[in-house]
Amino acid sequence: MSLHPFDAALLLGQTGPGHYEGHTHAAYWNMVGPFGGISAAQALQAIMQHPERLGEPVSFTANFAAALSAGAFRVEARPVRTNRSTQHWLVLLSQTDDTGQESVVLTATAVTALRRNTWSTVDAVMPAVPSPHGMARASTARPIAWLQRYDMRPCAGEMPVAWDGTEADSLTQLWMRDDPPRPLDYCSLLALADVFYPRVWRRRARMTPVGTVSMTVYFHAGAAELAATGTDYLLGQARAQSFFNGFFDQSAELWNESGRLLATTHQIVYFKE
Amino acid sequence: MSLHPFDAALLLGQTGPGHYEGHTHAAYWNMVGPFGGISAAQALQAIMQHPERLGEPVSFTANFAAALSAGAFRVEARPVRTNRSTQHWLVLLSQTDDTGQESVVLTATAVTALRRNTWSTVDAVMPAVPSPHGMARASTARPIAWLQRYDMRPCAGEMPVAWDGTEADSLTQLWMRDDPPRPLDYCSLLALADVFYPRVWRRRARMTPVGTVSMTVYFHAGAAELAATGTDYLLGQARAQSFFNGFFDQSAELWNESGRLLATTHQIVYFKE
Repeated sequence: MSLHPFDAALLLGQTGPGHYEGHTHAAYWNMVGPFGGISAAQALQAIMQHPERLGEPVSFTANFAAALSAGAFRVEARPVRTNRSTQHWLVLLSQTDDTGQESVVLTATAVTALRRNTWSTVDAVMPAVPSPHGMARASTARPIAWLQRYDMRPCAGEMPVAWDGTEADSLTQLWMRDDPPRPLDYCSLLALADVFYPRVWRRRARMTPVGTVSMTVYFHAGAAELAATGTDYLLGQARAQSFFNGFFDQSAELWNESGRLLATTHQIVYFKE
Repeated sequence: MSLHPFDAALLLGQTGPGHYEGHTHAAYWNMVGPFGGISAAQALQAIMQHPERLGEPVSFTANFAAALSAGAFRVEARPVRTNRSTQHWLVLLSQTDDTGQESVVLTATAVTALRRNTWSTVDAVMPAVPSPHGMARASTARPIAWLQRYDMRPCAGEMPVAWDGTEADSLTQLWMRDDPPRPLDYCSLLALADVFYPRVWRRRARMTPVGTVSMTVYFHAGAAELAATGTDYLLGQARAQSFFNGFFDQSAELWNESGRLLATTHQIVYFKE
């Protein structure tokens, strides 16, 4: 049985305590570098397989410092502080640059924790949308590798058909899951939090170069909730609040088919004009 | 003329390139450590006064690894990647712990950027509330130092009067500014993003121990917009989306009196039960 491309992309070989080597994966290539979600997932994977990890991810922030080149990269994952029930992580992804220097391409911080059962509730309201199983899959005609890795079924706020500058809201709602289907885990949930196309394209019906500079994911589910989700579709909802002088934000929520909120996520994205 | 307590708290002495020493300040003390907003501001200040800084803050994430002890701390601010118009930062705050070891108490990452004028718009809607100038200031009776440093004027979602477990929404809206008034800058805006009392207290009308573990602020304003805000009040609006097994999130927006959105902010907070 061959490895799922997501698992292949997440293969990290240990080169020392907390030090790993990985490789970009062609199946998740974007235009000038890998899909950001896969690079973030590779950083989280270094934490997940670290022998000193305490508990499960609660918070993860990635800063995309540079587009990765195709090929090898190094990851250092360091537990900078371990408390009784929480642990703070620092992760650096680096590559050898054109001048032969090792350069940082991604920084990440994360908090993992031993969760205890407490009073819990969800105030976010899951939008009422049709079941994904009767819906059409979005076109996979765009020749971009990573888009083929996600089965996306838009409910609202699809990519504009006409790039005519007609302004709209910035909302997108879509069902999504790995293709081929793969049981959900923290790394794949993190990557799924980055699948939304740029809000500025939706808002303006106008293409402009973009790039996420920082992304944060808050996990509102334990391993049991992820296991119960399995290969279900997730409903994602994303919108922006502000576009200002070259940067816009995006806030999004990810629910499973049973209506459980699994993650909330925020990012800030560069746009050229 | 004596220094404003916020400026006194932000005094960092350089001990080497990118290395600084600072001190906790009694005027911003919380219960078992400093107000988180001031510690985050001290981390940002290390970036602001770094001679290699490029541009203005766009994104800032602080992870609160441990309560700071009263006294000295060290800050290291490192520009890990400088591109043509963006720069990625890593900041570590540390203190000498009980065993004489230097321990990380706070990690932060940030992106600064040279912004260019682009198409801009705000989709977030500022709530309609009365002007702060005719409103009553919240009680400053609680004997907590940092609360005296902010003039807060609640519009909605005040701290519960009766801690009787009556569930409510998690929304709070309030006007706020430094006390004494101080012209707004990036560090004070960052600190203001952390003044909201814990959403779980509002949601449940029940006290439980809490602590922010990670906070992100996206800045949607340049130096000119901050200067134009001056000592105006800011309207802050905060609410939660999820409370799950020991951690809840908070999303908030900060507007100035003229209705300009200056920042959006998100955090994830530990709660005991």
